[in-house]
Amino acid sequence: MKSNQPTVALTMGDPAGVGPEIIAGAWQRSGFLDVSRPVVLGHPEILRRAVRLCQGHAEVVEIDRVAKASPSERVIPCLRCGSDDALEVEAGRIDARSGEAAYEAVVAAARLALAGEVDAITTAPLHKEALHLAGHHYPGHTELLAELCGVDDFAMMLYLGAGDPIASSGGLAVVHVTLHTALANVFAELTADAVLAKARLADRFMNRLNGTRPRIGVCSLNPHGGEGCLFGTEEQTIIRPAVERGRAEGIALEGPMPADTLMVQARDGKYDAIVAMYHDQGHIALKLLGMHRAVNVTLGLPIIRTSVAHGTAFDIAWQGKAEVNSMVEAVRVAARIAG
Amino acid sequence: MKSNQPTVALTMGDPAGVGPEIIAGAWQRSGFLDVSRPVVLGHPEILRRAVRLCQGHAEVVEIDRVAKASPSERVIPCLRCGSDDALEVEAGRIDARSGEAAYEAVVAAARLALAGEVDAITTAPLHKEALHLAGHHYPGHTELLAELCGVDDFAMMLYLGAGDPIASSGGLAVVHVTLHTALANVFAELTADAVLAKARLADRFMNRLNGTRPRIGVCSLNPHGGEGCLFGTEEQTIIRPAVERGRAEGIALEGPMPADTLMVQARDGKYDAIVAMYHDQGHIALKLLGMHRAVNVTLGLPIIRTSVAHGTAFDIAWQGKAEVNSMVEAVRVAARIAG
Repeated sequence: MKSNQPTVALTMGDPAGVGPEIIAGAWQRSGFLDVSRPVVLGHPEILRRAVRLCQGHAEVVEIDRVAKASPSERVIPCLRCGSDDALEVEAGRIDARSGEAAYEAVVAAARLALAGEVDAITTAPLHKEALHLAGHHYPGHTELLAELCGVDDFAMMLYLGAGDPIASSGGLAVVHVTLHTALANVFAELTADAVLAKARLADRFMNRLNGTRPRIGVCSLNPHGGEGCLFGTEEQTIIRPAVERGRAEGIALEGPMPADTLMVQARDGKYDAIVAMYHDQGHIALKLLGMHRAVNVTLGLPIIRTSVAHGTAFDIAWQGKAEVNSMVEAVRVAARIAG
Repeated sequence: MKSNQPTVALTMGDPAGVGPEIIAGAWQRSGFLDVSRPVVLGHPEILRRAVRLCQGHAEVVEIDRVAKASPSERVIPCLRCGSDDALEVEAGRIDARSGEAAYEAVVAAARLALAGEVDAITTAPLHKEALHLAGHHYPGHTELLAELCGVDDFAMMLYLGAGDPIASSGGLAVVHVTLHTALANVFAELTADAVLAKARLADRFMNRLNGTRPRIGVCSLNPHGGEGCLFGTEEQTIIRPAVERGRAEGIALEGPMPADTLMVQARDGKYDAIVAMYHDQGHIALKLLGMHRAVNVTLGLPIIRTSVAHGTAFDIAWQGKAEVNSMVEAVRVAARIAG
């Protein structure tokens, strides 16, 4: 580990989910120690249990300040967050105490990042119902972090690095205009301003990541791109005007195009980024293209934040089966953006 | 060609699109002559142009009855449909004359199938706007055929045969509860009865195709499966009751499950069929999994009908670039169901 590596705060997520074990498992695999200085935020005792579950060799060392962290293959520095209540939650169960623990780690991580004490944060999954039970009414991490950072224009981006089957050498990013909301709410949230805002965020991010202006494809909302207004008019009234405004600003936007064929073209290297209109449109594609290595990046925050692209996976939590690759990639991408 | 092979009527689709050339190209590749007795329905002169475009060697032989067809590598039997007006349409242009030509071929094919003169039909793509311009107000092929056959319970199924990346040995089928309609109309069309009807069709079809009861996964409508009603309630009020009713009938249904992870599980062999709630949910997945070999099968008709899973592709029509594999697969699947 080089001294100039970016410090990344890893939040442990919902203690009843796979968060603790994917952090312990990724550490065990030494997946990110070569590019970052990682510090875990959560309850040290829960993290110790996860290390034992993964038959890990590292020691969880509690620290009281980030500056004291000396992460290595044998040492996992942990800043304590949350009360001992979380020690009693059952694996795979929705519990207000887990929701509270996950919430406190995210708040602590955001504060450290805003204060410049860490260079980036990577979050393990929380469970939204547990979060709500704990009295924190956010649709997800992304919206919570946006509020903590005081921003309105933000977006969740899914990112897959280059490599089979992604043909573009800069990887493929997918931003979502609407996200954690019922499909029925999409129509009220979808505006030309919202589409353009997400396109700008994708343009800026991929430009920063790769040093070249990305080619961005914009999805239609309706089947067959609306089929000339036979299957809906949002393409003409909302999406096309947004694309034209973006192009006038110099963003390399194309669309709206039918989402099903656009995703195939993006995989094959025709685009570096996709603007999706709603959650499943982007997620179905990205998960099929690389579920275990997809990374979630929040755009538009004053801090750098990545996360795994999967959820708490309560059905397999604390069984030692969880795939750790997404956590490894999430920390690596955070370090790459910060570096 | 064996004498007991099923006779398949191939409709030429919109003459301004890729239909004629994919039929000529597939013929040239001898992709289905080993399993079927194919006959083309359309204007013979347009088909001759397509054969020349593909530098094909077969002769288009006009016949006046299916019984007279003697298809071979050197002979493409063609039953004339539509007027000479279609000879004047430009490649890649929406034209009422093309819409009319495509319509007449489909009507002729359906009548032949209903009369038992052909065993199955395979349709090349038509363009819905051209169809509408010609005064035929159907959202697509599927709905037109349903009306011609007098049925209400029908579904469009996408089918990918076994083979990389589909793990299930019987292939993967995706049926859609709603299809050619604006996304905003999905909420009115989505009912428990509709979900159950599509599940039954998928169950029956895959059982017939493979001889075993399929394992069927049912998609959620909303992100994260509705996240415990935080992101919508249709999972609880509509989809879950339909799944329970289907299971009570003995159908091997599971769900509703978040569509993004369900598609990954289906690819990996956990399911033989998927019930998708709307067009893009199923199409994004299937096109990524095998755009060029996906086949569209209409379920619930008294006739067997398959088609290519792509559209008219006006942007590349009559340039000799169109991929013919989906047409080859579509005829092969039709013959397999009929056989």
